[in-house]
Order: sequence, then structure tokens, then C-alpha cells
Amino acid sequence: MKHLNLLILASLAIVFSLNAQEKKYPQRAPMTPEMSEYWQPQPPVITPGKAHETAVPAPSDAIVLFDGENLSQWENSKGNAAEWTVHDGVFTVKRGTGDIQTKQKFNDFQLHIEWRSPQEVRGESQGRGNSGVFLQGVYEIQILDNYQNETYVNGQAGSVYKQTPPLANAMRKPGEWNTYDIIYTAPTFKKDGTYRTPPRVTLLQNGILLQNNTIILGTTPYIGFPEVIEHGEGPIRLQDHGDAVSFRNIWIREL
Amino acid sequence: MKHLNLLILASLAIVFSLNAQEKKYPQRAPMTPEMSEYWQPQPPVITPGKAHETAVPAPSDAIVLFDGENLSQWENSKGNAAEWTVHDGVFTVKRGTGDIQTKQKFNDFQLHIEWRSPQEVRGESQGRGNSGVFLQGVYEIQILDNYQNETYVNGQAGSVYKQTPPLANAMRKPGEWNTYDIIYTAPTFKKDGTYRTPPRVTLLQNGILLQNNTIILGTTPYIGFPEVIEHGEGPIRLQDHGDAVSFRNIWIREL
Amino acid sequence: MKHLNLLILASLAIVFSLNAQEKKYPQRAPMTPEMSEYWQPQPPVITPGKAHETAVPAPSDAIVLFDGENLSQWENSKGNAAEWTVHDGVFTVKRGTGDIQTKQKFNDFQLHIEWRSPQEVRGESQGRGNSGVFLQGVYEIQILDNYQNETYVNGQAGSVYKQTPPLANAMRKPGEWNTYDIIYTAPTFKKDGTYRTPPRVTLLQNGILLQNNTIILGTTPYIGFPEVIEHGEGPIRLQDHGDAVSFRNIWIREL
Amino acid sequence: MKHLNLLILASLAIVFSLNAQEKKYPQRAPMTPEMSEYWQPQPPVITPGKAHETAVPAPSDAIVLFDGENLSQWENSKGNAAEWTVHDGVFTVKRGTGDIQTKQKFNDFQLHIEWRSPQEVRGESQGRGNSGVFLQGVYEIQILDNYQNETYVNGQAGSVYKQTPPLANAMRKPGEWNTYDIIYTAPTFKKDGTYRTPPRVTLLQNGILLQNNTIILGTTPYIGFPEVIEHGEGPIRLQDHGDAVSFRNIWIREL
Repeated sequence: MKHLNLLILASLAIVFSLNAQEKKYPQRAPMTPEMSEYWQPQPPVITPGKAHETAVPAPSDAIVLFDGENLSQWENSKGNAAEWTVHDGVFTVKRGTGDIQTKQKFNDFQLHIEWRSPQEVRGESQGRGNSGVFLQGVYEIQILDNYQNETYVNGQAGSVYKQTPPLANAMRKPGEWNTYDIIYTAPTFKKDGTYRTPPRVTLLQNGILLQNNTIILGTTPYIGFPEVIEHGEGPIRLQDHGDAVSFRNIWIREL
Repeated sequence: MKHLNLLILASLAIVFSLNAQEKKYPQRAPMTPEMSEYWQPQPPVITPGKAHETAVPAPSDAIVLFDGENLSQWENSKGNAAEWTVHDGVFTVKRGTGDIQTKQKFNDFQLHIEWRSPQEVRGESQGRGNSGVFLQGVYEIQILDNYQNETYVNGQAGSVYKQTPPLANAMRKPGEWNTYDIIYTAPTFKKDGTYRTPPRVTLLQNGILLQNNTIILGTTPYIGFPEVIEHGEGPIRLQDHGDAVSFRNIWIREL
Repeated sequence: MKHLNLLILASLAIVFSLNAQEKKYPQRAPMTPEMSEYWQPQPPVITPGKAHETAVPAPSDAIVLFDGENLSQWENSKGNAAEWTVHDGVFTVKRGTGDIQTKQKFNDFQLHIEWRSPQEVRGESQGRGNSGVFLQGVYEIQILDNYQNETYVNGQAGSVYKQTPPLANAMRKPGEWNTYDIIYTAPTFKKDGTYRTPPRVTLLQNGILLQNNTIILGTTPYIGFPEVIEHGEGPIRLQDHGDAVSFRNIWIREL
Repeated sequence: MKHLNLLILASLAIVFSLNAQEKKYPQRAPMTPEMSEYWQPQPPVITPGKAHETAVPAPSDAIVLFDGENLSQWENSKGNAAEWTVHDGVFTVKRGTGDIQTKQKFNDFQLHIEWRSPQEVRGESQGRGNSGVFLQGVYEIQILDNYQNETYVNGQAGSVYKQTPPLANAMRKPGEWNTYDIIYTAPTFKKDGTYRTPPRVTLLQNGILLQNNTIILGTTPYIGFPEVIEHGEGPIRLQDHGDAVSFRNIWIREL
């Protein structure tokens, strides 16, 4: 039996290597992160209306993803309990525990999320209050402390990360709450795995329009070009980028 | 000479009248209002989050169109002073004085407007808390007291009037304030006066998505089909439909 | 048995009448055909390049829907054999036998079709060389002998019938062959049966652009407004409008 | 007085140099061509219907850009006479003389162009029958001898160069004529020089759909990412890539 198995494995290996040969196309040359970053024109800086002191409550048909109590609707990327810190009705990134994501998956949706970067400012550019919201677990809307902190424009708060800069810089000060209202239309795919219709996103930060039905071109990698990968429904994922960004009052409406 | 000129004029007149005859095409048959009204499916009724007790303040780059003091930025359709009633930091339709519109004209914009239908309920369907916001003075987004008050769906609050129903009924109760956040993309025109790119609108009422980059097909008449008419920049126009609808805290950002 | 049946019918009648009560919304008022017809502006008349004397052959990946021999790939609306007349490598509408449609159903596609109106001209406006191609069996692209024959513009050859006029009148003379090249993107639907993404069509007649990724608003009825009805894949349907329109060389590529 | 002026100038100089410093943003890191090339999935190879032996004639409203006689409607990039070779009713790239472009400029259009790569095959990948059509002088639709000649897919014949691969490989053999039918919608721009509406293109090669209202993301450089640059009307430009590609029967219809 053992010999037979080895034989089968050997023949499989040949098949695989033939397949591999058949498709031995050149690979894209490796890139560095800076290649997909650009700094101009910088969006206008706009002071939003006075911060809401209380959170914006959910409408009756919304799924409340965080109500101030616990992370029971969230998990880490391995499917285990989310380890971020819940305190005072908010939760905060726990550095080194990794991203967390909703257990539930979504298609088209309207998402409301409130976030706050640490009041004490450390670092600059991308190294300050950095996190992100991944739509369907794939496409990152950047979260960053951009208050009097310039960075590459396609990496600003409210950018489709490394793709499309926001129409404005609408940041509140460090330590103050920001709102994101996100309207997301999921992609559909052709049989060959490319987009039949691309994903689209509209985004308001603190009530100010940052993205207006923007087409999302593909994934939002730190290095290189967007790529189109086939996927179905997906979770809302929040990024552990090592900074103590806090969140509260997250709700979603399926469209 | 004079006679000759007259002769030329006379022959021109004939040519013109022939041209006029040549273009005497049939007219669309007259319609009744009910022909462009439909009632199903009724959008889901959603209770928005708790009403804001105070108005949503304008961001720093917005043009404040009403600050609670006076209607100095508005005029009636004849270009005279707007006659609606200002009181207690709000203004109210003054029945019979006609629509009012901003003196300033706009192209693409983000508009925030707060409106309230009378607390005392009278009438039903379209006869209750009826007004409207005309984008560029041409395209009506319906204002109506739709709280527990059914009407034809393409005439509901938040509809592109007689065209596209809202995705939801997100009304607060009569006497409570509603917010409209409107993102508008103006049309462009071809040489023959038809749309090169049609107007588009996204609308949130009380933070709930009602229109998602909806294409506007043309004008929004009470009777008949939408028509495409060529126009340039235009004002924000508010409708006097005879009901005492009130407004406050109106601001606009040019995009 | 008979009594039992009557009882069942009676109880069904009650159920139906309860449902009817529950949903007793007003109906759209009845309309006449002329209400959805308009005549201006008339598209420019363009003489296409010299007629191809031979048909445009199918590419290698196309499904040939008519190869000049028989109607084996077509059926009538009852699912029986298509009764139109095959002769000389073409087929012709057989008045009174009804529409015919492909047995196969399609989603997105590129369709090539060649058609010819009778050489002997009879009638005028819509009464001359009238037929149509229904995309997915639902949305009609008008076929009409529009050569020196004016009609309402949203009923011209190449119109999305009763919706969108063609960009040009590109007719060959009666008795000459016309080509339609149609690129069609099928709609997707939301749970409530309305469009998530609307159908779209690009059309070239005799190589001249008539529709450029035009949004189809709904069905294309003779009377009244377009309606949005949920559907899946559908056939190519050709209309028996009583005129002896002929077809040849039909092929389709699934996209 | 003179001294005072000098003082003012000196202080202005400081201000300017501060401004210059203020805007000294990081540049994108240099890239290599291979970074923006990808090879999979390869589009399906489709044999088009039998080649037309004669050119497709222009419709009556078209501007004929080459009628077989001379290059009187074309110029080189310096505004001097186009130096490519006219012979036998066609013209051919004259290596080393540079690109040529139409004297007339266009906005939206439908363009018909016929092209042929040399019958004698030399080189491979991009080194074989390479040229290009630049829409409004800015956006390249690739021309390449892709017959049994693989290359990176976003550099194939019919690609939006270095952006979007064609839906199919619809090449005729070397030495045979190919047709491109291109429907182009020009971009509009916002005040900050970014797209208000992006350019779009539909393309058929030999009657087969390669691009379906594809959004053009920006310029089509050999190295690096697409960039958005503001421009108005522009010419049709043909590329001298060193290969003896021939052209005939070019006409354009303004839309």
C-alpha cells in the first residue's frame, strides 16, 4: 500500500509540474510601497460642524454590531474570540492581537461607525492613529489621524487605500470622535473571476462627502497594484495597525 | 427698393411658415396625474435613531443658506423678496406667496436641509405636509408628511418626484425635525439639448439611505413623463404647496 | 366530487379577496398609446456605407442561431415549432403565427442580426416593416422601415421601444439588408424585485452607433410606462407585427 | 527707494522659497516597466469571421481621415507634415519619423480604423507589429500583432494600454487587415484637474467586443501608474513604435 501511494504521489507531482510549466508566465516585478503613493493635490482641509457629544443612534432596521458591552459579534482572523479591549462603552485596538471582523457576512450595505485616534499624538504621516475598515473583508477604507498631519493623499483618512484620495480632509482633533457613513455596493463577477460590475463606495466623514459612488478597482495592498480577486459576501474587518484607535456605536443596514 | 424688400420679406415669411408646417409633429396626448402614480411595492418603514434636538451645524467650507435670522439669500420666482415667514430661528411656507429660491446658483453640490411638517395633522396622502426641494430649480425631491400616511410610492418623501421611490420610509413624527443630506451631480448636455450625462442624486433622510446615486431621468412634472430640457447652473428652490412646512439650518457645499 | 371542487374554489375565492383587500391600492389610470410617444427632436438621417452584399460571418465562439437552413433553434411562445417561412437562406415573419424565440436562454451577450423590410412599401409610420428584437424576451429594440418614413422618435428603428430614441436614423432602403450589432448587459435584482443594476444596451445599425450603453428603464409596453419585473436568463424573441420582415445570419456570443 | 525695493524683493524671495519648501512632497519611487505588466488570465482566442477583402466604407456624416490618397489631414508632433509612407491606397509607419496625429481635434466620437501588421513575422511579445491609437492624443488603445503571440494581457491588441486587457484575442493573421470600431466618451474635469467624469471606451476588433464602456483610469504610460492630467479636445494620434504597421480607411463621426 505504501508503495502504491508513493507512486500516485509521484504521478501527481508530474501532473502538477506539467501544469506549472504550462502556465509559467512572467510575474510582475517586485515593487516597493512608495511606488503606489502620491502626495498631490492635497485635498482641502475642512473643519466639520461641532462634534456630536453623543453617538448617532441606530435606526430600527439596523444590525447593531457594537452596543458598548462586548465583542460578541466579532472574532479574530482565526475564528477565535476577538481580544481587543472593551472599556467605558468603547473598544480599542489591542496591539499585536491582529485584526478583528464581524461573524456575520454582508453584501450591499450602509455602515455607520465611530472612531477616535489617541488624544496624545505620537508619530507622523502613516504612523499616527492608523487603522482601517475593510469592506467585505477585502477593500480598505483608511482610518488615520490626519489632523494637521500630512501623508500621501491616497493613504489619507477616507481614502480607498492606495487608490482614491478623499474629496476633503474632514478630521476632528485627536481624542475627538469621528463618524464614517459608508454606502457600499458589492461587486459581481464574471465566470473568469474578473468584475462584471465593480464594487462602489460612498463615504461621509463627520457629515462631509469624501467618496461619491467611487469605483473600487480591486484589492488595496500596501505594495503594488490593486488586484481583482473573486469573493462572495464578507465581514466588516477592522485593522490592528499597532495604534490605539478606539471604536463605538457601529451599526449596519443591509441594502 | 422698398417694394423689393417687402417682396423678399413676404417670401421669407412663406418659407418660415413652410418650415413651421414641416415640423408640425403630433403632440403627446394629454394625460391625467394618476397615470404617473404607482403604489407598490411600498418601501419598508424604518424608525430613525432618536431625533437630534439641535440642528446639525455647517462645516467650515459651506455656504450657509439660512442661519435662523432672515431670508436675505432667497427670492421669489419673480426675483422679489421672499415672503415666507421667519420666526424662532426657522422659516415657514406662507401659503399663496409661491416658491422661493436661492439667489445664488449651483452646479454639483452637497446640500443639508432640515424640515418639519406641522404637528397638527390635516389631510392625507399628498395633502399633508407637502413641499419639495428642487435641485438646480428643476428636479424635485419630494417633501411630505409620510408618517403613517401612505401615498403613491413615487410621490413619497425622498422620492425623485413621479420617478423613483425612496429605498425606505424614514419619517419622524409630525412636528419633529427631519434632515435631508443630498449629494447632487449636475447633468451635462449634448448639442441637441439631450443629456450627455444625466443628473444623479444620493439622499439620506435622518441618516438613512433613500437614493443611491439614482439617475434623474428628466423634469419631475405633476402630469406626464419626465422631459429633458437644457439648463445650466440653478438655484435651490423650495415649494409652496399650501402646507405650513418649516425649514431651518440649510447649508450647501459646492463640489 | 363536484361539490368538493366548488367548495375549494369558494375558499380560494375568499383568500384571494382577503389578499386583494389587504393590497387595495389605487391602480394607475389607464392610458392611450399616444401618451408615451414623442416626435422631437428627430435624429439626424445618415446614409450608411455601401451595403454589404454578403452576410457578416460568425466568429468561432458564436452560437449560430440561424444558418439559412431551418428554424430548429426557435419555437413559438407556446413552445411549439416556429412557423415562420424559411426560403432562400432567410426566414420571414408569417403573419398571424405569433412571435418566435430561441430555445436557448441567455444572460449578457453580443448579438448580430440582419434584417430586411419588404421592398414594396406599404403603409406609413409604425405600419411599415414593423418587427422587433426582444432582449431576454423582455426588452424590445425596435425594427421598422424608417427609410424616409417618420414616426415618433422613441419608436424608430433602433429605439429602446417607447423609451430611448436612437442617436441616428441609419436605414438602408426597403428591400436592402440592415445589420444590428447589440451588446447587452442583463439586469440584476434586489430582493424586492426592483433593479439592483439595470439592463444596458449598446447598438450599432449598419455600423453606426444608435445606443451607447443606454440604461433600459424597464419593460417596453405599447401603452403606458416601463415596468420593472423580475426575470432571469431569457431568449432572443422576434416579433410578428404583421409585416413581412425577413431575417438572416443571426449569431450570438455569450459575454 | 531702490534699497527699499530690494528689501521687499528679498523678503518675497524668502516667502517664495518657504512656499517651495512647504510643497516639497515626496515623489513616487521610480518603477520599471515590468511592474505594470501582468500575464493572466489570458483572454480567449477567437477566430473572427472571414476577413473583409474590401474596406468598410464611411457613412455620410463621417469625416474621412484617410481616403487612400495622402496624409493631408495629419501632421507630426511638431506640427510639420506627416512623413509616413503612402502607397497602394494605404499608409505605413516610417520608422524613426515619430507619431502622427490628425490636425483636427475631437471630443466624443465613433472612430473606424483598419490596420495590418507586416506579413513577415519578426520578434515576439511587444516586439512584433506594435503601434497604437491614442484617443484625444492621450489614451492608448494598443495595436499589436497578437496572432499566436502571447504578451502581458494589459498590453494586448485592444487593451487600454497597461490598464485593461481586451475581452478576447480576435486577431487576424499577419498581413491581413483588422478593423477597430471605437466609441469614445471624453472626460470632464473638476476645478482641481481631476476627473469629474472619467473617459470611457467601447471597442470592437473585427466585429468582436473587446472593451464594453470601459472606464479609462488616466494616462497609459509604459512605466508606472496611470495619471490624471487635465486636457480638452484632442487629435487621433498613431504611434511610431518602429514596426511597419499599415493603415487604411480611417473615418470618424463626432457624437
